[in-house]
Amino acid sequence: MVFEAASVGTPEGDQAKSKKALKKEAKEAAKAAKKEEKKSQNASQLQEAENDYSAGKYGALPMIQSGDKISREFTHVKDLTKVLADQTVWIRGRLHTSRAKGKQCFAVIRQQQYSVQCLIAVSDTTSKAMVKFASNITKESIVDVEATVRIVNQSIESCSQKTVELHVIQLFTVSAAKSQLPLLIEDASRPVKDEGFVEIHTPKIISAASEGGANVFTVSYFKTSAYLAQSPQLYKQMAIAADFDKVFTVGAVFRAEDSNTHRHLTEFVGLDLEMAFKYHYHEVVDVIANSFTQIFKGLRDKFAAEIAAVSQQYPVEPFTFLDPPLRLDFATGVKMLREAGVEIGDEDDLSTPDEKLLGRLVKKTYDTDFYILDKYPLAVRPFYTMPDPKDNKKSNSYDMFMRGEEVLSGAQRIHDPEFLAERAKLHGVDLEKIKAYIDAFRFGCPPHAGGGIGMERVVMLYLGLDNIRKTSMFPRDPKRLTP
Amino acid sequence: MVFEAASVGTPEGDQAKSKKALKKEAKEAAKAAKKEEKKSQNASQLQEAENDYSAGKYGALPMIQSGDKISREFTHVKDLTKVLADQTVWIRGRLHTSRAKGKQCFAVIRQQQYSVQCLIAVSDTTSKAMVKFASNITKESIVDVEATVRIVNQSIESCSQKTVELHVIQLFTVSAAKSQLPLLIEDASRPVKDEGFVEIHTPKIISAASEGGANVFTVSYFKTSAYLAQSPQLYKQMAIAADFDKVFTVGAVFRAEDSNTHRHLTEFVGLDLEMAFKYHYHEVVDVIANSFTQIFKGLRDKFAAEIAAVSQQYPVEPFTFLDPPLRLDFATGVKMLREAGVEIGDEDDLSTPDEKLLGRLVKKTYDTDFYILDKYPLAVRPFYTMPDPKDNKKSNSYDMFMRGEEVLSGAQRIHDPEFLAERAKLHGVDLEKIKAYIDAFRFGCPPHAGGGIGMERVVMLYLGLDNIRKTSMFPRDPKRLTP
Repeated sequence: MVFEAASVGTPEGDQAKSKKALKKEAKEAAKAAKKEEKKSQNASQLQEAENDYSAGKYGALPMIQSGDKISREFTHVKDLTKVLADQTVWIRGRLHTSRAKGKQCFAVIRQQQYSVQCLIAVSDTTSKAMVKFASNITKESIVDVEATVRIVNQSIESCSQKTVELHVIQLFTVSAAKSQLPLLIEDASRPVKDEGFVEIHTPKIISAASEGGANVFTVSYFKTSAYLAQSPQLYKQMAIAADFDKVFTVGAVFRAEDSNTHRHLTEFVGLDLEMAFKYHYHEVVDVIANSFTQIFKGLRDKFAAEIAAVSQQYPVEPFTFLDPPLRLDFATGVKMLREAGVEIGDEDDLSTPDEKLLGRLVKKTYDTDFYILDKYPLAVRPFYTMPDPKDNKKSNSYDMFMRGEEVLSGAQRIHDPEFLAERAKLHGVDLEKIKAYIDAFRFGCPPHAGGGIGMERVVMLYLGLDNIRKTSMFPRDPKRLTP
Repeated sequence: MVFEAASVGTPEGDQAKSKKALKKEAKEAAKAAKKEEKKSQNASQLQEAENDYSAGKYGALPMIQSGDKISREFTHVKDLTKVLADQTVWIRGRLHTSRAKGKQCFAVIRQQQYSVQCLIAVSDTTSKAMVKFASNITKESIVDVEATVRIVNQSIESCSQKTVELHVIQLFTVSAAKSQLPLLIEDASRPVKDEGFVEIHTPKIISAASEGGANVFTVSYFKTSAYLAQSPQLYKQMAIAADFDKVFTVGAVFRAEDSNTHRHLTEFVGLDLEMAFKYHYHEVVDVIANSFTQIFKGLRDKFAAEIAAVSQQYPVEPFTFLDPPLRLDFATGVKMLREAGVEIGDEDDLSTPDEKLLGRLVKKTYDTDFYILDKYPLAVRPFYTMPDPKDNKKSNSYDMFMRGEEVLSGAQRIHDPEFLAERAKLHGVDLEKIKAYIDAFRFGCPPHAGGGIGMERVVMLYLGLDNIRKTSMFPRDPKRLTP
């Protein structure tokens, strides 16, 4: 047993314990120690064999099971700088690398994205056995280190903490890694929330398919069947009809599409916005576009180190954007494509290759990886899309693109129940099935527009990754359901 | 046609329009006007019949379809104070009430939770027909009002804006309510995010039931079957194993329980936290408990008006809490229940009536509606719960209660893969099915604990509501799937 409970302080109140309790505790401790011995057998044997003068200063900690309360102060690796020179600190981190070299062992301890070099060298307080123990710890194990902070003469380029190293006094494994793990870099980016937006939560289990019957997952729901929502749109709109003014929701969106591509997931994180406006849906387009600009600036300014780390592994041209963003009319996009030799009708939707090509043309002409394509043909948008009052072949709808791939689709929605029913009928939608939706607008509803953003796509395209699975901790596709 | 486009400014560039375009626009405008006339027929007829000198200053606006851009400044009702005395403003809001009284009409316009009194009185600029139009607008219709702000001598107690009223110059309906809607009060409360927590998103579609096979919804997943996650716990733990240190996630949680009670939903919003700790899981309990205290203080201080509004409709004793919160041992709770005459074994779980009773006893003794019950019997907790090292019949687990009902359940989780497998086997869990889960801890994992909070329950119990359905915009229960 190498862990000295006494050295880290006795919790208040222990003095008051009954003999019986103390006896019981002693028994438990003996049991725990025995269990522990098994784990750190190698270390223990060495310590015993050599009558080790470092005994008790290293080894495997018993599994932390919240026995006694210990109020030890830990320093975060990121805070290990010259300011702490010659002070003694405790850190808890991962063994990033270690390398034995004669009577010493150099180790790098990592805590999240920060790392520090540690030296364990044979001395009158550090035994050979302790150095050997250090050398044998498996990489990625979680370790507790007590050490003195020392300023180094030469910058340590391999660590984030370049100006100091740690001279180890005590070293324990908290949770040992069984084998080597490939390093994963997980980047989480959160969108900027605009003033005045209220976050809402919308149901995922719904009674009717929200965007038509295709591509929807079916759920057994007690004695009936239900569906997984393909979009929170109808609920966002009801919130607007209930005077929430500006709402957003972040949550799971489901698509039962058997698309095994680099950019499709069956479950993804949607950031959906909906906003009442006064006179023109461009009021909303401007807010959404500005949100993107804020996201891009935030990523660039606050996550430069993380972005650099990713682009070291996946090199890519940095993401460019204009402020304010570029907004093109759909007709202008079609013109650009035609000039590039693409055959496309005025009321056709863009194919994925068309979108990619247009992205390249836009980038060449305007030097931006982000732009808005506005005024899509009415024929290619859902029934609830508001027609353009000046041209009934067009609609008040828009897509937004990053590196030539769609990341947001949105529109002004029809807020007049009679007109909505008329448009639904024209699209062959069964009015009975969308009655609750249409009824939501019968008590007055402000004009409104919005859109839905696929967050994994935004991350993928911002970083220029080749596959959306690289942006999700636990991606779901037609063939992947675990972990 | 009563909407004067010219009066709100001509957008730039119109001058440059071709004759053809102008002709087309005129045609469209005529069409729109015709459509509009139908809607505001009564008003139009009156205006025509009387050769109305207020014509053009009132009526129904055409459906806002984002025709021309209009850059009119709107004032929010909440900003209507003495500061704006004698100024002319535009507001858009709901017609809350209206009351005709001889040659004048008093109306209250509401914008979200703010309201202002408006006066439409016959004068040399306001015709009798205009006052009549105002009197006939259906309640809850959305209206645009141009008016002069006037200071009043006597405080208007029925409105949030007590010191001013609006003398109406123009009045238009933007979206008319078809009939009366009962007023809904929707309160959204957001939890305080503690420093250092990273928000993650976890999959809802999973390949194996996360908390055992019971009460789980089945999804058709292409050619196979999947389940809806009953908890994001396993994923939170994987994030901890990947060194995220502190994570939280807010999202849908699914329970296929056929429980038709006041406190069960089949889909609810879970706020799940998980946190690595150094030595004792109480480090985590303290953080979670403090989050609750922050939530309670935030609600009390920032949402006093909203809480008062709800308690006017649903009277209840205000919610009480201690800072720091009360933490009782399970054994102490059992003792209190026994003293109150309840028969309960040391290793029994609490029944719902027991919980309610204990809540009342705690309230009586400690004057708090929130407390933590710690150290549940190991036998009544899931296999992954860390046993108490000092008493193997107890566990490092806890529930948190509000007004005697559970709102959070949590524990230190076993982070040692061998021990986890051992405990799973004891519980009869099929190791093959949880292989990915156990494997997640094979590369070293910090000791950690966490918990899951049902947000709707927190809202219900904080406000002392009698039914959880009152806290959800779109509640889901065994019998309710719409809207």
